[in-house]
Amino acid sequence: MAKPSIPKGTRDFSPVEMAKRNYIFNTIRDVYALYGFRQIETPAMENLSTLMGKYGEEGDKLLFKILNSGDFMSKTTLAELEEHNVGHLAAKFCEKGLRYDLTVPFARFVVQHREELQMPFKRYQIQPVWRADRPQKGRYREFYQCDADVVGSDSLLNEVELMQIIDEVFHRFGIRVDIKINNRKILSGIAEVIGEAEKIVDITVAIDKLDKIGLDNVNAELLANGLTQEAVEKLQPIISLSGTNAEKIATMREVLADSEVGLKGVAEVEFVLNNLGELVNQIDLDLTLARGLNYYTGCIFEVKALDVEIGSITGGGRYDNLTGIFGMPGLSGVGISFGADRIYDVLNQLELYPEDTAQGAQLLFINFGEQEAAYCLSLARQTRAAGISTEVYPDSVKMKKQMSYANAQQIPFVALCGETEMQEKKVALKNMLTGEQTSLTVEELIEKIR
Amino acid sequence: MAKPSIPKGTRDFSPVEMAKRNYIFNTIRDVYALYGFRQIETPAMENLSTLMGKYGEEGDKLLFKILNSGDFMSKTTLAELEEHNVGHLAAKFCEKGLRYDLTVPFARFVVQHREELQMPFKRYQIQPVWRADRPQKGRYREFYQCDADVVGSDSLLNEVELMQIIDEVFHRFGIRVDIKINNRKILSGIAEVIGEAEKIVDITVAIDKLDKIGLDNVNAELLANGLTQEAVEKLQPIISLSGTNAEKIATMREVLADSEVGLKGVAEVEFVLNNLGELVNQIDLDLTLARGLNYYTGCIFEVKALDVEIGSITGGGRYDNLTGIFGMPGLSGVGISFGADRIYDVLNQLELYPEDTAQGAQLLFINFGEQEAAYCLSLARQTRAAGISTEVYPDSVKMKKQMSYANAQQIPFVALCGETEMQEKKVALKNMLTGEQTSLTVEELIEKIR
Repeated sequence: MAKPSIPKGTRDFSPVEMAKRNYIFNTIRDVYALYGFRQIETPAMENLSTLMGKYGEEGDKLLFKILNSGDFMSKTTLAELEEHNVGHLAAKFCEKGLRYDLTVPFARFVVQHREELQMPFKRYQIQPVWRADRPQKGRYREFYQCDADVVGSDSLLNEVELMQIIDEVFHRFGIRVDIKINNRKILSGIAEVIGEAEKIVDITVAIDKLDKIGLDNVNAELLANGLTQEAVEKLQPIISLSGTNAEKIATMREVLADSEVGLKGVAEVEFVLNNLGELVNQIDLDLTLARGLNYYTGCIFEVKALDVEIGSITGGGRYDNLTGIFGMPGLSGVGISFGADRIYDVLNQLELYPEDTAQGAQLLFINFGEQEAAYCLSLARQTRAAGISTEVYPDSVKMKKQMSYANAQQIPFVALCGETEMQEKKVALKNMLTGEQTSLTVEELIEKIR
Repeated sequence: MAKPSIPKGTRDFSPVEMAKRNYIFNTIRDVYALYGFRQIETPAMENLSTLMGKYGEEGDKLLFKILNSGDFMSKTTLAELEEHNVGHLAAKFCEKGLRYDLTVPFARFVVQHREELQMPFKRYQIQPVWRADRPQKGRYREFYQCDADVVGSDSLLNEVELMQIIDEVFHRFGIRVDIKINNRKILSGIAEVIGEAEKIVDITVAIDKLDKIGLDNVNAELLANGLTQEAVEKLQPIISLSGTNAEKIATMREVLADSEVGLKGVAEVEFVLNNLGELVNQIDLDLTLARGLNYYTGCIFEVKALDVEIGSITGGGRYDNLTGIFGMPGLSGVGISFGADRIYDVLNQLELYPEDTAQGAQLLFINFGEQEAAYCLSLARQTRAAGISTEVYPDSVKMKKQMSYANAQQIPFVALCGETEMQEKKVALKNMLTGEQTSLTVEELIEKIR
């Protein structure tokens, strides 16, 4: 019989991997909660009418669709089947799909529950998403997103707090990062003043690639997209702008003097930076930061790790009309999303996990036989009541096998109870790290391990 | 535009619902970890070859199948389409399905990773499962299971620890429960001594319904299934057996004197009960407990709430050959599964959640304007550094709206900082429960809230 396997692009997580992942999720969760964000969850399956058309044509193809139960073909004619229009038939056979991200389900949630929600609504959500992408290194078909959003408040204080959250999370992880900020209104202003306002999407898409393809290729792409040589030249000093945040702001205020929207973007960034306290020194105003997603309308953020070569590990921004797609216009929001899988890779490469992350139970009772095991069970009741994670080895097999189990589980203390210990009402406790062995009462043992 | 909705049988979870659910999951998780169980996760999608045929014919129909990406019809002939054999075509169109429980994926996990695993392997798993069941009150198409299993150990100490876990979890919840134990070998022994060994499945299925349909209907079903009148009569004193556990064991040892397997079952139950310490008084040996699942081969458990009318809220048992279906025979295991959704309903009905479960942040700073908010932000940095979950209301709107936000979020403390407070470097702290208001430094405020 062939060994069973799992679908490509998906993963099993072993106990050690789970411990590391939980460390990541719990850290993010703790910081979100510290700022008053509250958790929600939405179903894995959404109606396809909720998902389709929200991620572009390519996104529609990457949705996992769920076959209707029962006779899924009952509403399909033979003529339709013969036509072999895959998209059309998929829509006939499937009403539901797996969620593709947490943003669209969140927008759907807000609109569906609008009467019950108190604005501003600050939610976080940590759940898997599924994409039928071609699997490759670091890209999976099932992966977790860790989003926080505030909707129903235009205040830039939300942007300030989200940047504080980003800083706090990476501080707790011990990952040195570069946090970039920009504003979509500044980009709109730039498009305006170089006389190419209607080309704003092409411009943002092109300069977003600056890091990856370099300035020459960005310029080539801009020209290919129909920008005039003059406009591209006007863009150069802005793309290459350097200096402190304050200097960049001063320059942009001059460059964008004639653009109302551009000046508004500058003022927004300035407000956020001014309210960040000491943190401001770690934030980098980067006018080439564009973020691919078209729904952003204000401040945008992106985080990269300084010590590992990897793409962005966190991103986010302000959007003014996310719920408009579900018939509820005019609700502004701002959010961030931590890329848990990439953070996992960064923590692994830099070996930044807390030392006891992979540790199993704290204490293992060795099993010397039925009588001894019964004695150990009663002691284990006491150590567990004291909050010490405890195992009693279930089988009275060779000592060596039991000790190798303790090592494999990274259990730091092993307790041995033979006849002598039972008579003396004691335990021989072995420290697996130092090899030191001491004879203790259970009360002393609890004291020592705690 | 129509209000968006979610697929029937699925649910959104609001912040308060999530807080309650997390209380349940965390309690179960903590107890599992206290006993040295370690968490794993498996993908939502499994290959249909892993899932099909594992849950009976009815189960196969209840699997959610995922349409293959791209041209899902490329391998299907027109003749096959015309034939309209729904099962056959679903198998052609779909390679993957959503997991139906955590047991089969766990068995698949153990076989797939056998070389990396150290036996005994004690794992827990808390993840959603999906079933295309007809939705009804208390039955959902997406729900969580919370399983713990030990594989690779025949020792009955595992049964003992799992019963301790069950007791500890419900003790922490404050739910009074009836924990039943029985043993499949006893049931086999009974079938043997009444001369109907080959009817063991019919017998267990019938007496499993005793609670629901009553003794007369059980007997009618047994007769309908071809048991002789004599056999059914022989069964009566066993089904109706009462007394203490010790009395029942003594009786069964006599009744089953001629059945080797039956006596083994009695000895197993006796060993488990003898090793349970004081707990033994809360466990009820119930010879009519059968558990529907056919893979059980030894001890079986079931838990019912005493103060709420609801089905079983936890169950489990020993199985000797779960991984055999994936080509790895001879691996024994024993496990339990907490029914989180039913436990949720029980806790709701009995109002047993800890008082602060629904509470949002601990502290809200009221926003009186740009200057004041900047001052509050700097104080919030300090309260958060002290571990106090803190919000700063982002917009300087009417006081009443901000206070009603605090009430809706069940925030216990509200901080007011106007001009006076800013000059005096103080905070007016309002206790939302008592209405008491005091003027404090931020250090005093931290002390008070902690």
